[in-house]
Amino acid sequence: MARIALDAMGGDHAPQAPIAAALLAAVELGAEHTLQLIGQESVIRDELAKQLVGASALVRELATRFEIVDAPDVILMTDKPSVAIRGKPNSSMAVGLKLQATGRSDAFVSAGNTGAQMAASVFILRLHDGLQRPAIGTVFPTAKQPVVVLDSGANVDCSARELVAFAQLGHVYAKDILGRATPAIGLLSVGEEAEKGNAAVKEAHQLLTQTSLNFVGNIEGRDIPMGACDRGPIDVVVCDGFTGNVLLKFYEAVAPMLFGMLMKAGVSKEQIGGAMHMLDYAKYGGAPLLGVKGVSIICHGKSSPEALKNGIHAGLRAFASGMSTHIGESISA
Amino acid sequence: MARIALDAMGGDHAPQAPIAAALLAAVELGAEHTLQLIGQESVIRDELAKQLVGASALVRELATRFEIVDAPDVILMTDKPSVAIRGKPNSSMAVGLKLQATGRSDAFVSAGNTGAQMAASVFILRLHDGLQRPAIGTVFPTAKQPVVVLDSGANVDCSARELVAFAQLGHVYAKDILGRATPAIGLLSVGEEAEKGNAAVKEAHQLLTQTSLNFVGNIEGRDIPMGACDRGPIDVVVCDGFTGNVLLKFYEAVAPMLFGMLMKAGVSKEQIGGAMHMLDYAKYGGAPLLGVKGVSIICHGKSSPEALKNGIHAGLRAFASGMSTHIGESISA
Repeated sequence: MARIALDAMGGDHAPQAPIAAALLAAVELGAEHTLQLIGQESVIRDELAKQLVGASALVRELATRFEIVDAPDVILMTDKPSVAIRGKPNSSMAVGLKLQATGRSDAFVSAGNTGAQMAASVFILRLHDGLQRPAIGTVFPTAKQPVVVLDSGANVDCSARELVAFAQLGHVYAKDILGRATPAIGLLSVGEEAEKGNAAVKEAHQLLTQTSLNFVGNIEGRDIPMGACDRGPIDVVVCDGFTGNVLLKFYEAVAPMLFGMLMKAGVSKEQIGGAMHMLDYAKYGGAPLLGVKGVSIICHGKSSPEALKNGIHAGLRAFASGMSTHIGESISA
Repeated sequence: MARIALDAMGGDHAPQAPIAAALLAAVELGAEHTLQLIGQESVIRDELAKQLVGASALVRELATRFEIVDAPDVILMTDKPSVAIRGKPNSSMAVGLKLQATGRSDAFVSAGNTGAQMAASVFILRLHDGLQRPAIGTVFPTAKQPVVVLDSGANVDCSARELVAFAQLGHVYAKDILGRATPAIGLLSVGEEAEKGNAAVKEAHQLLTQTSLNFVGNIEGRDIPMGACDRGPIDVVVCDGFTGNVLLKFYEAVAPMLFGMLMKAGVSKEQIGGAMHMLDYAKYGGAPLLGVKGVSIICHGKSSPEALKNGIHAGLRAFASGMSTHIGESISA
């Protein structure tokens, strides 16, 4: 039994998308788990009532089981993180995360202001001892199995020690969430030789060889779409958050661009549909903020109800697998 | 009239590919320009004789016009740059670049060891005053016009001032080679706001606003495949060589991966062919090492004869446009 808190006020399409996501998730999760809708209570109740018009008896019944938790302050997508944390102590993010910190919730899921969610998660849930920063782990589809790329944007300037911490976080993520027994960890660089890379990467390479992780060495940009380097498959790609964020956004945009070219060349939408589906970020739902004591799932600001519903599943998986506990054990080991 | 020196010993498929490229280029360039084949003379003459068996009278006649310049030392793809420079003073790279430094050649084109080519180019041609490092400018196909991304791998750790220098180099490249009247320059970052980015990028943003360049501000990974950000089209993408190199290799691999997926989904090779052609790196032939006093074109190690032939054209264009002179003027301005 898990209690998943959903930020009803976060994202470009709030409150419609989160409420719709909650209804979709309720049908899939059934009565075993509890969904907590966090936000301005009147807004949530109004939107819920609107979406329940004409809904099936089952959906109406499931919706009565939602726990609605009032949070009067609203964090805007444009708010600076520090302002959002200090100036809006009763935002849906603060309230949802405090529920978890006080043992009344098991996971928090939001498509709201990412910077604010990171800051609030670190402030309220706290980091596991031994970590200086959290990391965002994003799943990239590849020609083989999906890989987790981290950091995807939480830290733009990274030291070698932080890169090593990302490898540890990625190791646990790949085991608990992707189900890889002995995750193969690659360090993103500009050449496979140990002496290739910027200063932080070169030092991290040396440090990683001294860990008990399954470190396969440096990998290059070309290895990511393949999901493998010439030494075998990859499960985890370690990089600083600047490179990871640029790559993530590039990847999200390059597939539609290529498919657009093909459609101009006469390939039909239906033919492209299958491949598009394989690459759909919405399938993966959200990226956990790794390193915090608890579960905080970061969803894309423009998440559809489907994507947010998958974010709820991601939160459930992260909680049920004990990922956060395993991260704590891995870091202190 | 231009004299283009081609490294006959450089690349995974040397000497076959460079010699074949020279023959292809000779037909396209005609008698106006001179091709200089640099390498071990006996190897070049043997390979040329082999490739001329059964060739047309025209090709045989054009081949007699090749200037063959002996260079007994051979730089291997695995040689360290410093070793290659110091230990092999009569390599095809050293000989070809010295021809240019002494006024007997106008451009050097190679698919050989990139690190060695960069080091030899800086050592022999020298950098324009005011520059600390050269940059590799690579053309990325986009949904709109191609854009030049620099640095694509010459410098893995970059200061803000170096990023500003890349913007100046990219400005001249986009004008002279891509024919853009007022190149729009974007600084690659993790958000469009001036305060987003790592330390070097944030400082470079401030410095770029003080230049006379057409600086459109920060751009994100997603803007590159589009060839535009929400402020309009982009001609130049400025980034450090670590990020640029990772992106370049990622881009080269992601299109074949996506097309592979589509072919599994039943899209025919013919339908994909057109789009593949638009993305073919071989079309762009080679990337100039920007900042040196002269022309040094870096081609992919696995370049086909077609790609190397386009590298020869790239060398000719760089020379004919006066790009290096314009870079010198731009940097000292």
